[in-house]
Amino acid sequence: MGKLLEHIDNPGDLKRLSVPQLGALADEIRQFILDSVSRTGGHLASNLGIVELTLALHCVFDFKEDKLLWDVGHQCYAHKIVTGRKDKFARLRQTGGISGFPNPAESIYDRFTVGHAGTSIATAIGMALGEQLCKDEARGMRDDKRPSSIVHRQSKIVAVVGDASIVNGVSFESLNNLGLVKRQLLIVLNDNSMAIDPTQGALAKYFSKVRLSQTYEDLRKTTSNILEHLPGIGKSVEGAVERIKKSIRMVLPASQMFESLNIPYFGPVDGHDIGSLVQLFGALSQLKHPAILHVYTKKGKGFRPADLVPSRFHSTGPFKINGKKVEQTANASRPSFTEVFGKHLTALAAKDSRVVAITSAMCDGTGLVDFRKRFGDRFYDVGIAESAAVDIAAGLARAGAKPVVCIYSTFLQRSFDQIFQEVALQNLPVVFCVDRAGVVGLDGPTHHGLMDIGFLRMLPNMVLTAPADEVEVKLALEYALGEDRPVVIRYPKDLVPSKEFVRVACAKPFKLGKSVVVRKAKDSAIAIVSYGSVLAEALKAAKLLAKDGIAVDVINGRFAAPIDEKIISLLDVGKSIITVEDHRLACGFGSAVLESAAAKMAGSKGLGSIRVLGAPRRFIGHNSRKSQLMEAGLNADEIVKTVKSACGGLATPLRGN
Amino acid sequence: MGKLLEHIDNPGDLKRLSVPQLGALADEIRQFILDSVSRTGGHLASNLGIVELTLALHCVFDFKEDKLLWDVGHQCYAHKIVTGRKDKFARLRQTGGISGFPNPAESIYDRFTVGHAGTSIATAIGMALGEQLCKDEARGMRDDKRPSSIVHRQSKIVAVVGDASIVNGVSFESLNNLGLVKRQLLIVLNDNSMAIDPTQGALAKYFSKVRLSQTYEDLRKTTSNILEHLPGIGKSVEGAVERIKKSIRMVLPASQMFESLNIPYFGPVDGHDIGSLVQLFGALSQLKHPAILHVYTKKGKGFRPADLVPSRFHSTGPFKINGKKVEQTANASRPSFTEVFGKHLTALAAKDSRVVAITSAMCDGTGLVDFRKRFGDRFYDVGIAESAAVDIAAGLARAGAKPVVCIYSTFLQRSFDQIFQEVALQNLPVVFCVDRAGVVGLDGPTHHGLMDIGFLRMLPNMVLTAPADEVEVKLALEYALGEDRPVVIRYPKDLVPSKEFVRVACAKPFKLGKSVVVRKAKDSAIAIVSYGSVLAEALKAAKLLAKDGIAVDVINGRFAAPIDEKIISLLDVGKSIITVEDHRLACGFGSAVLESAAAKMAGSKGLGSIRVLGAPRRFIGHNSRKSQLMEAGLNADEIVKTVKSACGGLATPLRGN
Repeated sequence: MGKLLEHIDNPGDLKRLSVPQLGALADEIRQFILDSVSRTGGHLASNLGIVELTLALHCVFDFKEDKLLWDVGHQCYAHKIVTGRKDKFARLRQTGGISGFPNPAESIYDRFTVGHAGTSIATAIGMALGEQLCKDEARGMRDDKRPSSIVHRQSKIVAVVGDASIVNGVSFESLNNLGLVKRQLLIVLNDNSMAIDPTQGALAKYFSKVRLSQTYEDLRKTTSNILEHLPGIGKSVEGAVERIKKSIRMVLPASQMFESLNIPYFGPVDGHDIGSLVQLFGALSQLKHPAILHVYTKKGKGFRPADLVPSRFHSTGPFKINGKKVEQTANASRPSFTEVFGKHLTALAAKDSRVVAITSAMCDGTGLVDFRKRFGDRFYDVGIAESAAVDIAAGLARAGAKPVVCIYSTFLQRSFDQIFQEVALQNLPVVFCVDRAGVVGLDGPTHHGLMDIGFLRMLPNMVLTAPADEVEVKLALEYALGEDRPVVIRYPKDLVPSKEFVRVACAKPFKLGKSVVVRKAKDSAIAIVSYGSVLAEALKAAKLLAKDGIAVDVINGRFAAPIDEKIISLLDVGKSIITVEDHRLACGFGSAVLESAAAKMAGSKGLGSIRVLGAPRRFIGHNSRKSQLMEAGLNADEIVKTVKSACGGLATPLRGN
Repeated sequence: MGKLLEHIDNPGDLKRLSVPQLGALADEIRQFILDSVSRTGGHLASNLGIVELTLALHCVFDFKEDKLLWDVGHQCYAHKIVTGRKDKFARLRQTGGISGFPNPAESIYDRFTVGHAGTSIATAIGMALGEQLCKDEARGMRDDKRPSSIVHRQSKIVAVVGDASIVNGVSFESLNNLGLVKRQLLIVLNDNSMAIDPTQGALAKYFSKVRLSQTYEDLRKTTSNILEHLPGIGKSVEGAVERIKKSIRMVLPASQMFESLNIPYFGPVDGHDIGSLVQLFGALSQLKHPAILHVYTKKGKGFRPADLVPSRFHSTGPFKINGKKVEQTANASRPSFTEVFGKHLTALAAKDSRVVAITSAMCDGTGLVDFRKRFGDRFYDVGIAESAAVDIAAGLARAGAKPVVCIYSTFLQRSFDQIFQEVALQNLPVVFCVDRAGVVGLDGPTHHGLMDIGFLRMLPNMVLTAPADEVEVKLALEYALGEDRPVVIRYPKDLVPSKEFVRVACAKPFKLGKSVVVRKAKDSAIAIVSYGSVLAEALKAAKLLAKDGIAVDVINGRFAAPIDEKIISLLDVGKSIITVEDHRLACGFGSAVLESAAAKMAGSKGLGSIRVLGAPRRFIGHNSRKSQLMEAGLNADEIVKTVKSACGGLATPLRGN
């Protein structure tokens, strides 16, 4: 740890440093982040770029009282380091360690747990309105009734939003409603021209055109222009704002969009000039109305490999620096579901020119890099705009194309209404490839994909399927592209199961609503019906149970909508059913089985032998994927326990239970 | 029917009319709409305003080949009238009649069934990209293999979007991605300065400022300016566009926002000057790139009452015109759930100054008109921006306020991800008052609220409750505002049940996760457990069954999350359970009961006696609410049938079934 950083335990310590010291501290923090992330993995490039900006904010504001709202939130490392959490970076994103995202449970300096884009401006508006309201209320109280906690100076509010987030629909809706706020609220636009992938869309092009036309001298000039017109702390700002706006507007077309929304715009300024940033924040914090400051930063600053290929170091596993070379952890022996999917989709696109891929800033994450290279004219990345992505896909399908929408499960929640109205209601053949379905490991609760089965299986016309292994990813994709209605394919952020499971899993083509018996035991009283990649765990469980003399069948459910009637028929022959899925228990695959069974068995006995496994109804903290599966009762050991308890603790099968 | 209208059977007939005849036809159509809607009810004001615009579009384009995409869609009456459906207006929104929204099942001229805002630009982009793709593919085919249907002139694409829809996040995301399209695509911005309620937000203010500054002469001048620079059909348009843009930009700050997104902007022009519109569409249809035409129309044009208070005639029931007075159908004897809610929330706000109401363009529809009048500083209408509304509410709650979000069930689907991340994950005390939950009657499939229980009950921390009658609306609201976590209250678009049910329903305060026994029968083997307003139907069913000698208990479930354990315990004493809810069966209240039962009864017998009722897994067409409840098996007669079949057709109770 650097010499200056050693003595930084809270933001107050920053206020004692000179500008050159702050600059030196920024370099120390970058080195600290680099060392930490090389050991633990994490978000790298975005965090290296925002160090000076973070330090300047903490120098000027007091975020114990003031409110700092991060957008997306993966760029909060420097913030965590200076707010008393630097010693916890050894366990960044590990069991029991700190999260890679803001988290109010960790620190008073974090206001919202975030991970999805576009929310900071809206929550900032809400907090501004709420503070005003509660202040007014406190003022109305008699002095002896007023809780002392309510009486304080009006706190300042700052939202930090990236250029990739500000083009999101929620950001725009919020900017359009910023006029609700009649007090200070500063939006810092952290523009590094780079989301996970280069930012998409007209506004991004516009920003980048302006950016390219700006020299370092231009940025300096803009900074001094703002500072010259903005008076010092405590003085009146009326009039000055108008003068600045006028003098800046002349040279800055980037302000056009914000001005059309009546938002005072300042910038662009250099996001690594810490002295100027401190002065700018000091001046802008005095405004009595919302404003936006446009700041240029460099993603991956100070680290040559990240500098060069920021997308490669957006989120990285552990790595080693050997001189000038960086070695990321070698690939595993087996491919990931994502890789298998991407490769096969590309192969199918080569055969069918109507196949189109659409994503929302997840080209790399959903395995589409090769697809984009080979079929650039059939690949659309719309930026962080999941809602528009799905509607565009619906239009494509209506025109006769075969769109494949590739979005993580957690972000697909943003498209729920579009999938309902533009796809399911029209019964259009859009294929949804839902990556990161199930628990996701290190990113934690904002990123788990535990609700897609539930919100999608409520939609008429939709077919829901989940491949269990490498072979099935391909079969599911081929099946989906051949259907004349919407099909969802979900798979986890994980490697495909090892060959031993590929061997036992059935390689039969997918047939609508048909499950596959993978293991048939003699005299079994119980059938485990699994959905998706947890089949491997179910098979393991069956083996372990066999050793204890308990025979179970294993069925690969394959479809959550429609449910195979054959699964329900097991009850007729007196078998018990145990469903397993990597999805919240509520509304999941097992819930669908229960519903089907209840419908079929109405008025008769027997349904009591169904038992559903799934993630419990609470948030699962960040942890390894393996630990989370255990916590959720979804691994072999837990399934064994469940089966044993279903048998009443006996080691013999309970036929006809 | 007017003399001209009599002879209009399809859009081709319009092309034979002179401009004055088209003007006269517009007036006839307005009269026709007025007469029709006065008999059937429907959307009035928006449809009266858009007649000339619709006729001009159909004069210029051929929407059998070309694609006309409506946004929201309730303004499609003139379109339906001229596309062969005028004779069907007698049964507008009635059983077996035509829908009040575009519907491809009715006509080739309708491309998407819509009803939610902000989708037309995205689907237009998708269709433009898809047509290009499929054309390219056809070109690559050998002549003998090319299906003749694919070979035709490139079709034109037009999206008509209102000023209330264009501020929606999905619209913005789409505008930001319009650059994907390298061919003709015309966006017509139908600006009537009026959503259901006056349009909210900065952009609306901006539009209206421009609008107020424009005289009729200004609009004429802009029109001729565009026409002068745009060459006639068939001639080259290159160069001309740039000249027009330049000459118009000088006088039109409204273009600023669109230009910042690199979208060629034309207008504003007079949307009732049909001759000019025909010329403008003719010229603009020749552009080889996307463009936007800003058109001013007058909501409720030609009808004085609608003219004066458009929000009163946005969507109306049948009415009578007596001279200059208009009589809307008198209020029913009982209040609606919405009215009871709105009145009580206002009363509670008077007692607690931290109570804040937030809606997204549904002030009137959610019963907040009085609240807004009395507590204007605690009322926020953010326009059609459901996502931002929820995030703002989360900020308010974090700051100590008590936000109440009032959004229809179907539109709340737009906020799913925000409710997940900003509310449930933070466990913030936001109250969601979900109006229009369940089937909604005349508006049909786009507007049913059949999925809210499912997508909300998956979220940890959320409490889901549903009042059964007038008393319970108040109790639920008081309960929710007292909880320190998020609470959802759902109720239908319906009158509260008559007093006879208020009498029997329990008036006990709501207690977290506690159901209420409403009717206890001696020797009953069956308990009907209802959720929300269908309690009235359950009680009716119980009475009818009693006459047949079948004793049933009736339980008011009250909470869908958490489920009362006492409900599940009924199985222990050998009772059968029948759940009833106005929600899709999948993932609903009954599904939650099944899940709880499966968890509790694991390894034992008895669960087989659960049977779940709910709307089936398919879209329910527009119809009366009563018919839809019957269709979904949710009224007294259907419940009787289910109970009888559960009894094996016997008229005697099956104790311990």
